[in-house]
Amino acid sequence: MNIVLLDPRQTESELWSITSKRQLEHLKQHIDIQVGNTLKVGIREGLRYSTEVVEVTEQIVKLKPIQIEPVPAKLPVTLIVAMPRPKVLRRLIMDSVTLGVENIILLHSYRVDKSYWQSPFLQQLDQYVTLGLEQAGDTVAPKIEIYKRFKPFVEDVLPSLMTAEKPAYVAHPYAQSKMPFAIEHACTLLIGPEGGFIPYEIDLLVKNGCQAVSLGNRIIRTETVIAYSLGRLFGVS
Amino acid sequence: MNIVLLDPRQTESELWSITSKRQLEHLKQHIDIQVGNTLKVGIREGLRYSTEVVEVTEQIVKLKPIQIEPVPAKLPVTLIVAMPRPKVLRRLIMDSVTLGVENIILLHSYRVDKSYWQSPFLQQLDQYVTLGLEQAGDTVAPKIEIYKRFKPFVEDVLPSLMTAEKPAYVAHPYAQSKMPFAIEHACTLLIGPEGGFIPYEIDLLVKNGCQAVSLGNRIIRTETVIAYSLGRLFGVS
Repeated sequence: MNIVLLDPRQTESELWSITSKRQLEHLKQHIDIQVGNTLKVGIREGLRYSTEVVEVTEQIVKLKPIQIEPVPAKLPVTLIVAMPRPKVLRRLIMDSVTLGVENIILLHSYRVDKSYWQSPFLQQLDQYVTLGLEQAGDTVAPKIEIYKRFKPFVEDVLPSLMTAEKPAYVAHPYAQSKMPFAIEHACTLLIGPEGGFIPYEIDLLVKNGCQAVSLGNRIIRTETVIAYSLGRLFGVS
Repeated sequence: MNIVLLDPRQTESELWSITSKRQLEHLKQHIDIQVGNTLKVGIREGLRYSTEVVEVTEQIVKLKPIQIEPVPAKLPVTLIVAMPRPKVLRRLIMDSVTLGVENIILLHSYRVDKSYWQSPFLQQLDQYVTLGLEQAGDTVAPKIEIYKRFKPFVEDVLPSLMTAEKPAYVAHPYAQSKMPFAIEHACTLLIGPEGGFIPYEIDLLVKNGCQAVSLGNRIIRTETVIAYSLGRLFGVS
């Protein structure tokens, strides 16, 4: 937690209040927060501030805003990822948010176990987003969408996410072309499930305008390949 | 598991044998292995083969080697990372191995909890390396070293890991320079603990020849920053 994210309603009076149990615990256990400390605070969907701690009790920490700080820029990327195992979902969302992904789409695919869509974790995406934003020092949540049918998504929705200035790349170990690096434009990035997209899916994606690109001959896990690809694509920034 | 990693002793006769419980379970549950299937196999520290399954029982799978396949190249990088929480260690080693890191050094640092060095997970590094190699399709383990004292390491060991052709970069959110991208040479990469290296440590690293470099104004978790940095640094390959 590198900033404390507050709801706008918590910042309506002159002094702001932290009342979330999770945030209070973190501030006491990890930071040993004291009156007079400086604390970085973000307002959800709003600005980021440096604040001064003016009161610390069991139930509340009160803050006085001091100065506006810059909110980090997003990466101009729409990340489309095959729905991962529930255990992986949390980390994947957190990391994608931390890295600054602008839009996230969770997609069904042949090798996605249908049971994953029943996971209670899907109801907790907002918590993972908050953790990712607090890690990064960001305040603006990405848009997250869910598409449970592969073909209609690829044929009817995906083309609208692509333009000449915003190409779509699908990571595919057996592609001939390599994933580009240090691009200076937006893109859509598709990452398959464990075991990869099946050939039919790759064909359909390519037919609908995606470029299949390889990261070399190592096979990398979904959650790792996201960070690796984003570093490669947006290394220039 | 994208290859099955065998000990050289398991490949001494004409037919090779898989007898590890973990590997047999994976092959039966995830791949539903049958006689006649093709299976990718690597010999630890040796070659990689395409093989044919010739026998499947409860206790053993027997294979006939068919053809040599290329082992993926390593990234020319020595990764020096502050000892992470035990929970993170497993994933960090696995991912670093999967991504092809050549040498890994686990280092103490001021913000590393001393208890981390007592973790039983430290005795299991070889298991995590195996999982990382099997994920990547690699056969060659990186060298892993442990240094429990920061200053002697930085002053006496680190300089020997750097040359004009192999600079050392320490990721530091407050550095003025940015981390380079798409480099075409080897490097040493230092990643701090959660909370980062302290200013004294950064100063000592810089005094001993490291370049402090930033990844922008997002603060990224240790395990995520490794994949992100490697993608950025070696995006060209």
